[in-house]
Amino acid sequence: MSGSEHGGDHWSAGPIELDFSVNLNPLGLPAAVRAALLDQVDRFSAYPDPQTRALRSALADHHRVSPERVVCGNGAADLIHRLAQVVRPAQALVLAPTFSEYERAVRLVGGAVAHHRLEPDDFTVRADLLEKIQPGCRLVVVCQPNNPTGRLADPALLVELARRCQAVDALLLVDECFLPFSQGDSLLDRLDDCPNLVVLRAFTKLYAMAGLRLGYLVTAQRSLLERLRAWTPPWTVSAVAEAAGLAALGLGPAWIEDTRRLVARQRQSLSAGLSALGLTVTASQANYVLARARFPLTERLAHQGLLVRDCSNFVGLDARWHRFAVRPAPEQDRLLAVLAQLHRPSAE
Amino acid sequence: MSGSEHGGDHWSAGPIELDFSVNLNPLGLPAAVRAALLDQVDRFSAYPDPQTRALRSALADHHRVSPERVVCGNGAADLIHRLAQVVRPAQALVLAPTFSEYERAVRLVGGAVAHHRLEPDDFTVRADLLEKIQPGCRLVVVCQPNNPTGRLADPALLVELARRCQAVDALLLVDECFLPFSQGDSLLDRLDDCPNLVVLRAFTKLYAMAGLRLGYLVTAQRSLLERLRAWTPPWTVSAVAEAAGLAALGLGPAWIEDTRRLVARQRQSLSAGLSALGLTVTASQANYVLARARFPLTERLAHQGLLVRDCSNFVGLDARWHRFAVRPAPEQDRLLAVLAQLHRPSAE
Repeated sequence: MSGSEHGGDHWSAGPIELDFSVNLNPLGLPAAVRAALLDQVDRFSAYPDPQTRALRSALADHHRVSPERVVCGNGAADLIHRLAQVVRPAQALVLAPTFSEYERAVRLVGGAVAHHRLEPDDFTVRADLLEKIQPGCRLVVVCQPNNPTGRLADPALLVELARRCQAVDALLLVDECFLPFSQGDSLLDRLDDCPNLVVLRAFTKLYAMAGLRLGYLVTAQRSLLERLRAWTPPWTVSAVAEAAGLAALGLGPAWIEDTRRLVARQRQSLSAGLSALGLTVTASQANYVLARARFPLTERLAHQGLLVRDCSNFVGLDARWHRFAVRPAPEQDRLLAVLAQLHRPSAE
Repeated sequence: MSGSEHGGDHWSAGPIELDFSVNLNPLGLPAAVRAALLDQVDRFSAYPDPQTRALRSALADHHRVSPERVVCGNGAADLIHRLAQVVRPAQALVLAPTFSEYERAVRLVGGAVAHHRLEPDDFTVRADLLEKIQPGCRLVVVCQPNNPTGRLADPALLVELARRCQAVDALLLVDECFLPFSQGDSLLDRLDDCPNLVVLRAFTKLYAMAGLRLGYLVTAQRSLLERLRAWTPPWTVSAVAEAAGLAALGLGPAWIEDTRRLVARQRQSLSAGLSALGLTVTASQANYVLARARFPLTERLAHQGLLVRDCSNFVGLDARWHRFAVRPAPEQDRLLAVLAQLHRPSAE
């Protein structure tokens, strides 16, 4: 994979002072996770549990699902690729713009990928998506809220979508990696009604543990679970990731509430600040904001030590579109101050 | 995957006092690796380098190969499965007995697997293996030294094998995960002569870091390298594994020399002790010893809190065969003392 396909590529960029290109929780790594890593360092020599029993059990309690329905992986990207390898969809449908790994994973197994283009006025997923689901389609992916737009689809529409997928024998993958940053409702409560639904989650973003690699997916479809397990190499989840995940789940709902509060406040001020500078801002419900400038800003910002996500490699976007992570106030203030020198509201 | 397919399954076993079922370095996790994890804990929140540049560069220095020839993965098992997914060999040949993941990985992608049965007198890989390589075969795997036998193949025979594989357009995968425990020569020096050679290595065993997940493979075949990279999900190597790997490589040759010295001494005393108790011991050059008892011992040893590797799921072996890890003297003394109550030399 090439270096700058996703955010956070410090290795290709020059010296970076502040990073708005990755979408991690602005609260950072929880102190309890850090403490668990330090306390348990001597356990990391031994093999991890190949069946991740303790972690699946804790996830089952956390989400009130059965542990048999949970499959853990080496980050969400690992699970996206494994799902594609198991399902080998000849045809798949993804949103545009959206996270690029869904399409990459399907193409790697030889599948064709159609795009459901979202209108750039607000990038909302609407009911016209349902009509795109035709026989032959085997996988539909919705990122909820969508990356890079931050837009939430109506959960009732997603349940309709799951039914429509079921009617043509397609799986619906709903990527909820960013959902805890929003006020949106999870589809994890709808697994029993929607046997073709697969919900993807990750610790990466919510607990700012991208370097540890831990994701999971949840589905009620038993044959899919069996195939996913059969296709999993042993020990994909490291002992470090399992320890960190258990510590993170031990934080309970307070972490998520604190996160939502901080993100809502900072997102509001970031969106307002970008808007005031003349950028066209998409109303986000996630921990990042998509905005269109009048010209590309990425290189100019990098010269000032600020890394943002250039969106030119998202289908339907171009280099005028940028994704800005929601960060603590001093960092956002610095970004807006630098941007004020580069991009003024147009005279009109 | 089922719980007891490999060693080290503490989650399925009862309370365990000593573990002889996993093949980790008896020196344990190096202090420098432990220190690196503690020192760098605050870096593990951020995404790892998707191209593992620093680690591949350090591995290239360590082995005197080009960094472009190195592919890192989430443990050796991840790389075995990825290689199978990329190559999709319709026919493969593996030793019997040997590590089971080679066969599992080939079967998952729909390939047929033939076994080259090793004679149980000494389980040596001999030149008759060459005759088994016929057109149609796409992948041959040799574990060097072999797991669970601990036997080293003659490197000259392996080079001949690579040539024979090349003649029929097959890849030769040589798994050198246990090679640093032996006095054997690596095939890493032969990459230029053998374009179809793939050498697999892991940090897991040599640096006793099984819980961190880090392996790598090295090959000169450019098209294979490109396909392996294309098939790699982003961020398969965690920031923790990369930090640990760099610290491990920083130890230099002293770690390997200390390891070899300890393993040679303990292997000798373990082999002699097992032999004296009437077990039939295979002469090992690895950090484990394969031995045949007159009856299965695994359950009886587990009742005494000792976990050993029951070899009944290796092709060609049965429950009378056990694999014992080489461990520090006090642990081996305890094992031999318990075994002395269970298995006496036969009267003959």
